[in-house]
Amino acid sequence: MVTHKTAYRVIYGDTDKMGVVYYANYLRLFEIGRSEMFRCFGMSYAEMEDEGFALPVTEAFCKYGASARYDDLLTIETALEPEIAARIRFEYRILRDSDEALLATGHTVHAFLKIADGKVVRPPKFFRELIARHANSTE
Amino acid sequence: MVTHKTAYRVIYGDTDKMGVVYYANYLRLFEIGRSEMFRCFGMSYAEMEDEGFALPVTEAFCKYGASARYDDLLTIETALEPEIAARIRFEYRILRDSDEALLATGHTVHAFLKIADGKVVRPPKFFRELIARHANSTE
Amino acid sequence: MVTHKTAYRVIYGDTDKMGVVYYANYLRLFEIGRSEMFRCFGMSYAEMEDEGFALPVTEAFCKYGASARYDDLLTIETALEPEIAARIRFEYRILRDSDEALLATGHTVHAFLKIADGKVVRPPKFFRELIARHANSTE
Amino acid sequence: MVTHKTAYRVIYGDTDKMGVVYYANYLRLFEIGRSEMFRCFGMSYAEMEDEGFALPVTEAFCKYGASARYDDLLTIETALEPEIAARIRFEYRILRDSDEALLATGHTVHAFLKIADGKVVRPPKFFRELIARHANSTE
Repeated sequence: MVTHKTAYRVIYGDTDKMGVVYYANYLRLFEIGRSEMFRCFGMSYAEMEDEGFALPVTEAFCKYGASARYDDLLTIETALEPEIAARIRFEYRILRDSDEALLATGHTVHAFLKIADGKVVRPPKFFRELIARHANSTE
Repeated sequence: MVTHKTAYRVIYGDTDKMGVVYYANYLRLFEIGRSEMFRCFGMSYAEMEDEGFALPVTEAFCKYGASARYDDLLTIETALEPEIAARIRFEYRILRDSDEALLATGHTVHAFLKIADGKVVRPPKFFRELIARHANSTE
Repeated sequence: MVTHKTAYRVIYGDTDKMGVVYYANYLRLFEIGRSEMFRCFGMSYAEMEDEGFALPVTEAFCKYGASARYDDLLTIETALEPEIAARIRFEYRILRDSDEALLATGHTVHAFLKIADGKVVRPPKFFRELIARHANSTE
Repeated sequence: MVTHKTAYRVIYGDTDKMGVVYYANYLRLFEIGRSEMFRCFGMSYAEMEDEGFALPVTEAFCKYGASARYDDLLTIETALEPEIAARIRFEYRILRDSDEALLATGHTVHAFLKIADGKVVRPPKFFRELIARHANSTE
Protein backbone atom coordinates (compact mmCIF):
# COMPACT_ATOMS: atom_id res chain seq x y z
CA MET A 1 0.00 0.00 0.00
CA VAL A 2 1.08 3.56 -0.68
CA THR A 3 0.49 5.54 2.51
CA HIS A 4 0.46 9.15 3.59
CA LYS A 5 -0.02 11.00 6.88
CA THR A 6 -1.30 14.49 7.47
CA ALA A 7 -2.15 16.44 10.61
CA TYR A 8 -5.45 18.12 11.48
CA ARG A 9 -6.49 20.23 14.46
CA VAL A 10 -10.19 19.98 15.45
CA ILE A 11 -12.03 23.32 15.60
CA TYR A 12 -15.31 24.30 17.26
CA GLY A 13 -16.97 24.28 13.87
CA ASP A 14 -16.23 20.54 13.55
CA THR A 15 -17.88 19.57 16.81
CA ASP A 16 -21.52 19.05 17.77
CA LYS A 17 -23.41 19.35 21.05
CA MET A 18 -22.05 16.01 22.29
CA GLY A 19 -18.65 17.74 22.37
CA VAL A 20 -17.25 15.48 19.66
CA VAL A 21 -16.56 15.84 15.95
CA TYR A 22 -19.90 15.62 14.08
CA TYR A 23 -20.03 12.30 12.26
CA ALA A 24 -20.28 13.82 8.78
CA ASN A 25 -17.11 15.83 9.32
CA TYR A 26 -14.94 12.70 9.31
CA LEU A 27 -15.60 12.67 5.56
CA ARG A 28 -14.01 16.12 5.40
CA LEU A 29 -10.97 14.60 7.13
CA PHE A 30 -10.91 11.80 4.56
CA GLU A 31 -10.91 14.43 1.80
CA ILE A 32 -7.98 16.22 3.42
CA GLY A 33 -6.15 12.90 3.66
CA ARG A 34 -6.52 11.88 0.03
CA SER A 35 -5.89 15.37 -1.33
CA GLU A 36 -2.64 15.74 0.63
CA MET A 37 -1.65 12.29 -0.62
CA PHE A 38 -2.10 13.52 -4.19
CA ARG A 39 0.01 16.58 -3.51
CA CYS A 40 2.70 14.29 -2.13
CA PHE A 41 2.62 12.29 -5.39
CA GLY A 42 3.74 15.46 -7.15
CA MET A 43 0.35 16.30 -8.66
CA SER A 44 -2.36 18.00 -6.67
CA TYR A 45 -5.98 17.05 -7.22
CA ALA A 46 -6.50 20.60 -8.56
CA GLU A 47 -3.82 19.96 -11.20
CA MET A 48 -5.48 16.69 -12.12
CA GLU A 49 -8.72 18.57 -12.69
CA ASP A 50 -6.75 20.98 -14.90
CA GLU A 51 -5.64 17.90 -16.87
CA GLY A 52 -9.32 17.15 -17.41
CA PHE A 53 -9.95 14.41 -14.88
CA ALA A 54 -12.05 14.17 -11.74
CA LEU A 55 -12.54 11.43 -9.15
CA PRO A 56 -16.18 11.62 -8.05
CA VAL A 57 -16.88 9.56 -4.96
CA THR A 58 -19.18 6.59 -5.48
CA GLU A 59 -19.08 5.18 -1.96
CA ALA A 60 -18.02 6.30 1.51
CA PHE A 61 -17.84 4.37 4.75
CA CYS A 62 -16.80 5.30 8.25
CA LYS A 63 -16.59 3.21 11.42
CA TYR A 64 -16.42 5.36 14.54
CA GLY A 65 -14.36 4.45 17.61
CA ALA A 66 -13.25 6.79 20.37
CA SER A 67 -14.46 10.34 19.73
CA ALA A 68 -12.35 13.17 18.36
CA ARG A 69 -12.82 16.20 20.63
CA TYR A 70 -12.31 19.93 20.31
CA ASP A 71 -8.67 20.98 19.88
CA ASP A 72 -7.48 17.38 19.46
CA LEU A 73 -4.54 17.10 17.13
CA LEU A 74 -5.32 14.26 14.74
CA THR A 75 -3.32 12.24 12.27
CA ILE A 76 -5.14 11.31 9.09
CA GLU A 77 -3.58 8.20 7.55
CA THR A 78 -4.48 7.54 3.94
CA ALA A 79 -3.62 4.36 2.06
CA LEU A 80 -4.00 3.44 -1.60
CA GLU A 81 -3.52 0.14 -3.41
CA PRO A 82 -0.77 0.76 -6.01
CA GLU A 83 -2.59 -1.52 -8.50
CA ILE A 84 -5.29 0.84 -9.70
CA ALA A 85 -8.36 -0.77 -11.21
CA ALA A 86 -11.33 1.01 -12.80
CA ARG A 87 -12.39 2.17 -9.36
CA ILE A 88 -9.93 3.74 -6.92
CA ARG A 89 -10.25 2.91 -3.26
CA PHE A 90 -8.68 4.96 -0.48
CA GLU A 91 -8.47 3.59 3.06
CA TYR A 92 -8.31 5.96 6.05
CA ARG A 93 -7.47 5.83 9.72
CA ILE A 94 -7.95 8.81 12.05
CA LEU A 95 -5.81 8.79 15.18
CA ARG A 96 -5.47 11.19 18.09
CA ASP A 97 -1.87 12.23 18.64
CA SER A 98 -1.99 12.63 22.43
CA ASP A 99 -2.93 9.02 23.25
CA GLU A 100 -2.71 7.33 19.82
CA ALA A 101 -6.37 6.32 20.13
CA LEU A 102 -7.88 5.06 16.89
CA LEU A 103 -10.89 7.33 16.35
CA ALA A 104 -12.17 6.18 13.00
CA THR A 105 -11.44 3.91 10.07
CA GLY A 106 -13.09 4.11 6.71
CA HIS A 107 -12.79 4.11 2.97
CA THR A 108 -13.98 5.94 -0.09
CA VAL A 109 -14.35 4.58 -3.61
CA HIS A 110 -13.99 6.88 -6.61
CA ALA A 111 -14.63 6.62 -10.32
CA PHE A 112 -12.17 8.13 -12.76
CA LEU A 113 -14.07 10.69 -14.81
CA LYS A 114 -13.06 12.52 -18.00
CA ILE A 115 -14.56 15.94 -17.27
CA ALA A 116 -14.95 16.94 -20.95
CA ASP A 117 -17.60 14.34 -21.73
CA GLY A 118 -18.55 13.17 -18.23
CA LYS A 119 -17.52 9.61 -19.12
CA VAL A 120 -16.03 7.16 -16.64
CA VAL A 121 -12.63 6.02 -17.93
CA ARG A 122 -9.84 3.75 -16.78
CA PRO A 123 -7.21 5.66 -14.77
CA PRO A 124 -4.85 7.19 -17.37
CA LYS A 125 -1.22 6.14 -17.67
CA PHE A 126 0.18 9.33 -16.12
CA PHE A 127 -1.82 8.67 -12.98
CA ARG A 128 -0.85 5.00 -12.68
CA GLU A 129 2.80 5.98 -13.16
CA LEU A 130 2.60 8.68 -10.49
CA ILE A 131 1.43 6.14 -7.96
CA ALA A 132 3.85 3.41 -9.05
CA ARG A 133 6.76 5.84 -8.79
CA HIS A 134 5.67 6.85 -5.31
CA ALA A 135 5.12 3.21 -4.29
CA ASN A 136 8.66 2.34 -5.33
CA SER A 137 10.21 5.35 -3.63
CA THR A 138 8.65 4.43 -0.29
CA GLU A 139 9.45 0.73 -0.35
CA MET B 1 -39.86 -1.93 8.12
CA VAL B 2 -41.07 1.28 9.73
CA THR B 3 -40.59 4.05 7.20
CA HIS B 4 -40.71 7.82 7.14
CA LYS B 5 -40.31 10.52 4.48
CA THR B 6 -39.19 14.08 4.86
CA ALA B 7 -38.43 16.85 2.36
CA TYR B 8 -35.20 18.81 2.02
CA ARG B 9 -34.26 21.71 -0.28
CA VAL B 10 -30.57 21.88 -1.29
CA ILE B 11 -28.87 25.21 -0.50
CA TYR B 12 -25.64 26.74 -1.82
CA GLY B 13 -23.96 25.86 1.45
CA ASP B 14 -24.55 22.15 0.76
CA THR B 15 -22.88 22.18 -2.66
CA ASP B 16 -19.23 22.07 -3.70
CA LYS B 17 -17.36 23.33 -6.74
CA MET B 18 -18.61 20.41 -8.87
CA GLY B 19 -22.07 21.96 -8.50
CA VAL B 20 -23.35 18.98 -6.51
CA VAL B 21 -24.03 18.29 -2.85
CA TYR B 22 -20.69 17.70 -1.08
CA TYR B 23 -20.41 14.02 -0.22
CA ALA B 24 -20.20 14.55 3.55
CA ASN B 25 -23.46 16.50 3.55
CA TYR B 26 -25.49 13.39 2.69
CA LEU B 27 -24.81 12.38 6.29
CA ARG B 28 -26.53 15.59 7.37
CA LEU B 29 -29.52 14.48 5.28
CA PHE B 30 -29.45 11.08 6.99
CA GLU B 31 -29.53 12.86 10.36
CA ILE B 32 -32.57 14.90 9.29
CA GLY B 33 -34.26 11.70 8.14
CA ARG B 34 -33.84 9.75 11.36
CA SER B 35 -34.58 12.73 13.59
CA GLU B 36 -37.86 13.48 11.79
CA MET B 37 -38.71 9.77 12.05
CA PHE B 38 -38.29 10.01 15.82
CA ARG B 39 -40.54 13.05 15.98
CA CYS B 40 -43.12 11.11 14.02
CA PHE B 41 -42.93 8.32 16.62
CA GLY B 42 -44.18 10.85 19.15
CA MET B 43 -40.82 11.37 20.86
CA SER B 44 -38.19 13.65 19.44
CA TYR B 45 -34.53 12.74 19.72
CA ALA B 46 -34.14 15.81 21.99
CA GLU B 47 -36.80 14.38 24.33
CA MET B 48 -34.99 11.05 24.33
CA GLU B 49 -31.83 12.83 25.43
CA ASP B 50 -33.88 14.46 28.19
CA GLU B 51 -34.85 10.92 29.24
CA GLY B 52 -31.15 10.19 29.59
CA PHE B 53 -30.41 8.28 26.39
CA ALA B 54 -28.32 8.99 23.31
CA LEU B 55 -27.74 7.07 20.08
CA PRO B 56 -24.12 7.71 19.10
CA VAL B 57 -23.35 6.59 15.57
CA THR B 58 -20.94 3.68 15.28
CA GLU B 59 -20.98 3.28 11.51
CA ALA B 60 -22.10 5.26 8.47
CA PHE B 61 -22.22 4.26 4.83
CA CYS B 62 -23.33 6.08 1.69
CA LYS B 63 -23.47 4.92 -1.92
CA TYR B 64 -23.74 7.83 -4.35
CA GLY B 65 -25.78 7.72 -7.54
CA ALA B 66 -27.00 10.66 -9.58
CA SER B 67 -25.94 13.95 -7.99
CA ALA B 68 -28.15 16.21 -5.93
CA ARG B 69 -27.83 19.76 -7.27
CA TYR B 70 -28.49 23.25 -5.97
CA ASP B 71 -32.16 23.98 -5.28
CA ASP B 72 -33.19 20.36 -5.86
CA LEU B 73 -36.12 19.35 -3.72
CA LEU B 74 -35.20 15.99 -2.18
CA THR B 75 -37.10 13.29 -0.36
CA ILE B 76 -35.23 11.61 2.45
CA GLU B 77 -36.65 8.15 3.09
CA THR B 78 -35.71 6.57 6.38
CA ALA B 79 -36.44 2.97 7.33
CA LEU B 80 -35.99 1.10 10.59
CA GLU B 81 -36.33 -2.59 11.46
CA PRO B 82 -39.09 -2.79 14.10
CA GLU B 83 -37.17 -5.60 15.89
CA ILE B 84 -34.54 -3.56 17.70
CA ALA B 85 -31.40 -5.38 18.77
CA ALA B 86 -28.52 -3.99 20.78
CA ARG B 87 -27.52 -1.90 17.78
CA ILE B 88 -30.04 0.18 15.84
CA ARG B 89 -29.72 0.39 12.10
CA PHE B 90 -31.39 3.05 9.96
CA GLU B 91 -31.56 2.70 6.20
CA TYR B 92 -31.82 5.76 3.95
CA ARG B 93 -32.68 6.62 0.38
CA ILE B 94 -32.34 10.13 -1.05
CA LEU B 95 -34.50 10.87 -4.08
CA ARG B 96 -34.94 13.96 -6.23
CA ASP B 97 -38.58 14.97 -6.50
CA SER B 98 -38.51 16.38 -10.04
CA ASP B 99 -37.41 13.18 -11.81
CA GLU B 100 -37.56 10.61 -8.95
CA ALA B 101 -33.86 9.87 -9.52
CA LEU B 102 -32.28 7.83 -6.72
CA LEU B 103 -29.35 9.98 -5.59
CA ALA B 104 -28.02 8.01 -2.66
CA THR B 105 -28.63 5.02 -0.47
CA GLY B 106 -26.99 4.35 2.85
CA HIS B 107 -27.26 3.34 6.43
CA THR B 108 -26.12 4.30 9.88
CA VAL B 109 -25.67 2.05 12.91
CA HIS B 110 -26.12 3.43 16.42
CA ALA B 111 -25.44 2.21 19.93
CA PHE B 112 -27.96 2.92 22.67
CA LEU B 113 -26.16 4.90 25.37
CA LYS B 114 -27.21 5.76 28.90
CA ILE B 115 -25.87 9.29 29.15
CA ALA B 116 -25.49 9.28 32.96
CA ASP B 117 -22.74 6.67 33.02
CA GLY B 118 -21.77 6.52 29.35
CA LYS B 119 -22.64 2.82 29.21
CA VAL B 120 -24.04 1.09 26.15
CA VAL B 121 -27.38 -0.49 27.05
CA ARG B 122 -30.09 -2.48 25.30
CA PRO B 123 -32.81 -0.19 23.88
CA PRO B 124 -35.20 0.47 26.79
CA LYS B 125 -38.78 -0.75 26.78
CA PHE B 126 -40.33 2.67 26.14
CA PHE B 127 -38.31 2.97 22.95
CA ARG B 128 -39.12 -0.51 21.66
CA GLU B 129 -42.80 0.15 22.36
CA LEU B 130 -42.74 3.48 20.54
CA ILE B 131 -41.47 1.77 17.41
CA ALA B 132 -43.77 -1.24 17.72
CA ARG B 133 -46.78 1.05 18.10
CA HIS B 134 -45.74 3.01 15.04
CA ALA B 135 -45.03 -0.19 13.08
CA ASN B 136 -48.55 -1.43 13.80
CA SER B 137 -50.22 1.86 12.95
CA THR B 138 -48.61 1.95 9.50
CA GLU B 139 -49.26 -1.68 8.56
CA MET C 1 -39.90 46.59 3.24
CA VAL C 2 -40.77 43.35 1.46
CA THR C 3 -40.68 40.58 4.05
CA HIS C 4 -40.72 36.81 4.09
CA LYS C 5 -40.73 34.13 6.77
CA THR C 6 -39.48 30.57 6.59
CA ALA C 7 -39.09 27.81 9.17
CA TYR C 8 -35.94 25.90 10.06
CA ARG C 9 -35.35 23.03 12.49
CA VAL C 10 -31.87 22.92 14.10
CA ILE C 11 -30.00 19.63 13.61
CA TYR C 12 -27.00 18.14 15.45
CA GLY C 13 -24.82 19.07 12.50
CA ASP C 14 -25.59 22.77 13.08
CA THR C 15 -24.50 22.76 16.72
CA ASP C 16 -21.08 22.93 18.35
CA LYS C 17 -19.72 21.69 21.67
CA MET C 18 -21.33 24.59 23.56
CA GLY C 19 -24.66 22.99 22.61
CA VAL C 20 -25.67 25.95 20.44
CA VAL C 21 -25.74 26.62 16.71
CA TYR C 22 -22.16 27.27 15.54
CA TYR C 23 -21.81 30.95 14.72
CA ALA C 24 -20.96 30.44 11.04
CA ASN C 25 -24.15 28.43 10.51
CA TYR C 26 -26.35 31.49 11.00
CA LEU C 27 -25.11 32.53 7.57
CA ARG C 28 -26.56 29.29 6.21
CA LEU C 29 -29.88 30.34 7.78
CA PHE C 30 -29.59 33.74 6.10
CA GLU C 31 -29.09 31.97 2.75
CA ILE C 32 -32.21 29.87 3.33
CA GLY C 33 -34.12 33.04 4.17
CA ARG C 34 -33.22 35.01 1.08
CA SER C 35 -33.52 32.03 -1.26
CA GLU C 36 -37.04 31.20 -0.03
CA MET C 37 -37.88 34.90 -0.42
CA PHE C 38 -36.85 34.68 -4.08
CA ARG C 39 -38.99 31.59 -4.61
CA CYS C 40 -41.91 33.48 -3.09
CA PHE C 41 -41.34 36.30 -5.64
CA GLY C 42 -42.10 33.75 -8.34
CA MET C 43 -38.49 33.27 -9.46
CA SER C 44 -36.10 31.03 -7.62
CA TYR C 45 -32.45 32.02 -7.30
CA ALA C 46 -31.65 28.96 -9.45
CA GLU C 47 -33.89 30.35 -12.22
CA MET C 48 -32.18 33.73 -11.93
CA GLU C 49 -28.85 31.99 -12.47
CA ASP C 50 -30.38 30.33 -15.53
CA GLU C 51 -31.23 33.85 -16.74
CA GLY C 52 -27.52 34.63 -16.47
CA PHE C 53 -27.38 36.56 -13.20
CA ALA C 54 -25.81 35.89 -9.82
CA LEU C 55 -25.81 37.81 -6.55
CA PRO C 56 -22.38 37.24 -4.97
CA VAL C 57 -22.24 38.36 -1.36
CA THR C 58 -19.95 41.31 -0.67
CA GLU C 59 -20.64 41.71 3.02
CA ALA C 60 -22.21 39.71 5.84
CA PHE C 61 -22.95 40.69 9.42
CA CYS C 62 -24.53 38.86 12.32
CA LYS C 63 -25.29 40.01 15.86
CA TYR C 64 -25.89 37.09 18.22
CA GLY C 65 -28.43 37.17 21.04
CA ALA C 66 -29.93 34.18 22.85
CA SER C 67 -28.57 30.92 21.47
CA ALA C 68 -30.35 28.63 19.06
CA ARG C 69 -30.20 25.08 20.44
CA TYR C 70 -30.55 21.59 19.05
CA ASP C 71 -34.05 20.78 17.77
CA ASP C 72 -35.24 24.39 18.17
CA LEU C 73 -37.77 25.36 15.56
CA LEU C 74 -36.68 28.73 14.18
CA THR C 75 -38.31 31.37 12.08
CA ILE C 76 -36.02 33.10 9.61
CA GLU C 77 -37.39 36.55 8.75
CA THR C 78 -35.93 38.15 5.64
CA ALA C 79 -36.57 41.73 4.58
CA LEU C 80 -35.62 43.61 1.44
CA GLU C 81 -35.90 47.30 0.54
CA PRO C 82 -38.16 47.44 -2.54
CA GLU C 83 -36.06 50.29 -4.00
CA ILE C 84 -33.11 48.30 -5.32
CA ALA C 85 -29.87 50.21 -5.84
CA ALA C 86 -26.65 48.86 -7.37
CA ARG C 87 -26.14 46.79 -4.24
CA ILE C 88 -28.91 44.67 -2.74
CA ARG C 89 -29.20 44.46 1.00
CA PHE C 90 -31.15 41.77 2.83
CA GLU C 91 -31.95 42.10 6.53
CA TYR C 92 -32.52 39.03 8.69
CA ARG C 93 -33.95 38.15 12.07
CA ILE C 94 -33.78 34.64 13.54
CA LEU C 95 -36.41 33.85 16.18
CA ARG C 96 -37.13 30.76 18.23
CA ASP C 97 -40.75 29.68 17.90
CA SER C 98 -41.24 28.27 21.41
CA ASP C 99 -40.51 31.49 23.32
CA GLU C 100 -40.23 34.05 20.48
CA ALA C 101 -36.68 34.85 21.63
CA LEU C 102 -34.71 36.93 19.15
CA LEU C 103 -31.60 34.83 18.51
CA ALA C 104 -29.84 36.83 15.84
CA THR C 105 -30.13 39.82 13.57
CA GLY C 106 -27.97 40.51 10.59
CA HIS C 107 -27.66 41.53 7.00
CA THR C 108 -25.95 40.59 3.78
CA VAL C 109 -25.05 42.85 0.88
CA HIS C 110 -24.87 41.48 -2.66
CA ALA C 111 -23.66 42.72 -6.00
CA PHE C 112 -25.67 41.96 -9.12
CA LEU C 113 -23.42 40.02 -11.48
CA LYS C 114 -23.84 39.14 -15.14
CA ILE C 115 -22.40 35.63 -15.14
CA ALA C 116 -21.40 35.65 -18.84
CA ASP C 117 -18.75 38.32 -18.45
CA GLY C 118 -18.39 38.48 -14.67
CA LYS C 119 -19.35 42.17 -14.70
CA VAL C 120 -21.27 43.88 -11.91
CA VAL C 121 -24.44 45.41 -13.36
CA ARG C 122 -27.44 47.34 -12.09
CA PRO C 123 -30.30 45.00 -11.13
CA PRO C 124 -32.17 44.29 -14.41
CA LYS C 125 -35.72 45.47 -14.99
CA PHE C 126 -37.28 42.00 -14.62
CA PHE C 127 -35.82 41.73 -11.12
CA ARG C 128 -36.90 45.19 -10.00
CA GLU C 129 -40.40 44.47 -11.31
CA LEU C 130 -40.59 41.13 -9.48
CA ILE C 131 -39.89 42.86 -6.20
CA ALA C 132 -42.16 45.83 -6.89
CA ARG C 133 -45.02 43.49 -7.76
CA HIS C 134 -44.48 41.55 -4.57
CA ALA C 135 -44.19 44.74 -2.51
CA ASN C 136 -47.53 45.95 -3.85
CA SER C 137 -49.26 42.63 -3.29
CA THR C 138 -48.26 42.59 0.37
CA GLU C 139 -49.11 46.20 1.18
CA MET D 1 -1.92 45.34 17.87
CA VAL D 2 -0.91 41.76 18.70
CA THR D 3 -0.90 39.80 15.45
CA HIS D 4 -0.69 36.20 14.39
CA LYS D 5 -0.59 34.34 11.07
CA THR D 6 -1.68 30.84 10.28
CA ALA D 7 -1.97 28.87 7.04
CA TYR D 8 -5.05 27.15 5.65
CA ARG D 9 -5.55 25.02 2.54
CA VAL D 10 -9.03 25.21 0.94
CA ILE D 11 -10.75 21.83 0.52
CA TYR D 12 -13.70 20.79 -1.67
CA GLY D 13 -15.91 20.79 1.41
CA ASP D 14 -15.29 24.53 1.84
CA THR D 15 -16.40 25.47 -1.66
CA ASP D 16 -19.83 25.96 -3.20
CA LYS D 17 -21.16 25.62 -6.73
CA MET D 18 -19.67 28.97 -7.75
CA GLY D 19 -16.27 27.31 -7.28
CA VAL D 20 -15.38 29.59 -4.37
CA VAL D 21 -15.31 29.23 -0.60
CA TYR D 22 -18.91 29.40 0.70
CA TYR D 23 -19.40 32.70 2.49
CA ALA D 24 -20.21 31.17 5.88
CA ASN D 25 -16.94 29.22 5.85
CA TYR D 26 -14.86 32.40 6.21
CA LEU D 27 -16.13 32.41 9.80
CA ARG D 28 -14.54 28.98 10.22
CA LEU D 29 -11.28 30.55 9.03
CA PHE D 30 -11.70 33.35 11.57
CA GLU D 31 -12.11 30.72 14.29
CA ILE D 32 -8.90 28.98 13.19
CA GLY D 33 -7.12 32.35 13.25
CA ARG D 34 -8.11 33.35 16.77
CA SER D 35 -7.66 29.85 18.20
CA GLU D 36 -4.12 29.54 16.82
CA MET D 37 -3.40 33.03 18.20
CA PHE D 38 -4.42 31.77 21.65
CA ARG D 39 -2.16 28.75 21.34
CA CYS D 40 0.67 31.08 20.42
CA PHE D 41 0.00 33.08 23.63
CA GLY D 42 0.88 29.92 25.53
CA MET D 43 -2.69 29.02 26.48
CA SER D 44 -5.02 27.28 24.06
CA TYR D 45 -8.69 28.16 23.99
CA ALA D 46 -9.37 24.60 25.25
CA GLU D 47 -7.16 25.28 28.27
CA MET D 48 -9.01 28.52 28.93
CA GLU D 49 -12.27 26.57 28.95
CA ASP D 50 -10.64 24.20 31.46
CA GLU D 51 -9.93 27.31 33.58
CA GLY D 52 -13.67 27.98 33.50
CA PHE D 53 -13.92 30.72 30.89
CA ALA D 54 -15.47 30.92 27.43
CA LEU D 55 -15.58 33.65 24.79
CA PRO D 56 -18.98 33.40 23.11
CA VAL D 57 -19.19 35.46 19.94
CA THR D 58 -21.59 38.39 20.09
CA GLU D 59 -20.95 39.82 16.64
CA ALA D 60 -19.32 38.71 13.38
CA PHE D 61 -18.63 40.67 10.22
CA CYS D 62 -17.00 39.75 6.93
CA LYS D 63 -16.31 41.86 3.85
CA TYR D 64 -15.60 39.71 0.79
CA GLY D 65 -13.09 40.66 -1.88
CA ALA D 66 -11.47 38.34 -4.44
CA SER D 67 -12.70 34.77 -3.99
CA ALA D 68 -10.80 31.98 -2.29
CA ARG D 69 -10.83 28.96 -4.58
CA TYR D 70 -10.31 25.22 -4.20
CA ASP D 71 -6.79 24.23 -3.16
CA ASP D 72 -5.75 27.86 -2.55
CA LEU D 73 -3.22 28.18 0.23
CA LEU D 74 -4.46 31.02 2.45
CA THR D 75 -2.92 33.06 5.21
CA ILE D 76 -5.26 33.96 8.04
CA GLU D 77 -4.04 37.09 9.81
CA THR D 78 -5.54 37.72 13.23
CA ALA D 79 -5.05 40.91 15.22
CA LEU D 80 -6.05 41.83 18.77
CA GLU D 81 -5.91 45.13 20.65
CA PRO D 82 -3.62 44.52 23.65
CA GLU D 83 -5.85 46.77 25.82
CA ILE D 84 -8.71 44.39 26.53
CA ALA D 85 -12.03 45.94 27.54
CA ALA D 86 -15.17 44.09 28.62
CA ARG D 87 -15.61 42.92 25.05
CA ILE D 88 -12.77 41.40 23.04
CA ARG D 89 -12.49 42.24 19.38
CA PHE D 90 -10.45 40.23 16.88
CA GLU D 91 -9.69 41.60 13.43
CA TYR D 92 -9.01 39.26 10.52
CA ARG D 93 -7.56 39.39 7.03
CA ILE D 94 -7.59 36.41 4.66
CA LEU D 95 -4.96 36.48 1.93
CA ARG D 96 -4.11 34.08 -0.89
CA ASP D 97 -0.45 33.10 -0.83
CA SER D 98 0.08 32.71 -4.59
CA ASP D 99 -0.80 36.30 -5.56
CA GLU D 100 -1.15 37.98 -2.15
CA ALA D 101 -4.74 38.94 -3.06
CA LEU D 102 -6.79 40.18 -0.11
CA LEU D 103 -9.82 37.85 -0.07
CA ALA D 104 -11.64 38.98 3.02
CA THR D 105 -11.47 41.26 6.02
CA GLY D 106 -13.63 41.02 9.07
CA HIS D 107 -13.95 41.01 12.79
CA THR D 108 -15.61 39.16 15.64
CA VAL D 109 -16.58 40.52 19.04
CA HIS D 110 -16.67 38.21 22.08
CA ALA D 111 -17.92 38.44 25.62
CA PHE D 112 -15.86 36.94 28.43
CA LEU D 113 -18.02 34.36 30.16
CA LYS D 114 -17.54 32.53 33.45
CA ILE D 115 -18.83 29.09 32.50
CA ALA D 116 -19.80 28.07 36.07
CA ASP D 117 -22.59 30.63 36.40
CA GLY D 118 -22.96 31.79 32.79
CA LYS D 119 -22.18 35.38 33.82
CA VAL D 120 -20.32 37.84 31.60
CA VAL D 121 -17.22 39.03 33.44
CA ARG D 122 -14.31 41.37 32.75
CA PRO D 123 -11.35 39.50 31.22
CA PRO D 124 -9.44 38.01 34.18
CA LYS D 125 -5.95 39.12 35.08
CA PHE D 126 -4.23 35.97 33.79
CA PHE D 127 -5.71 36.60 30.35
CA ARG D 128 -4.76 40.27 30.22
CA GLU D 129 -1.24 39.36 31.30
CA LEU D 130 -0.93 36.66 28.64
CA ILE D 131 -1.72 39.19 25.94
CA ALA D 132 0.42 41.94 27.44
CA ARG D 133 3.38 39.57 27.65
CA HIS D 134 2.90 38.55 24.04
CA ALA D 135 2.45 42.18 22.96
CA ASN D 136 5.77 43.11 24.55
CA SER D 137 7.62 40.15 23.12
CA THR D 138 6.59 41.06 19.57
CA GLU D 139 7.29 44.80 19.79
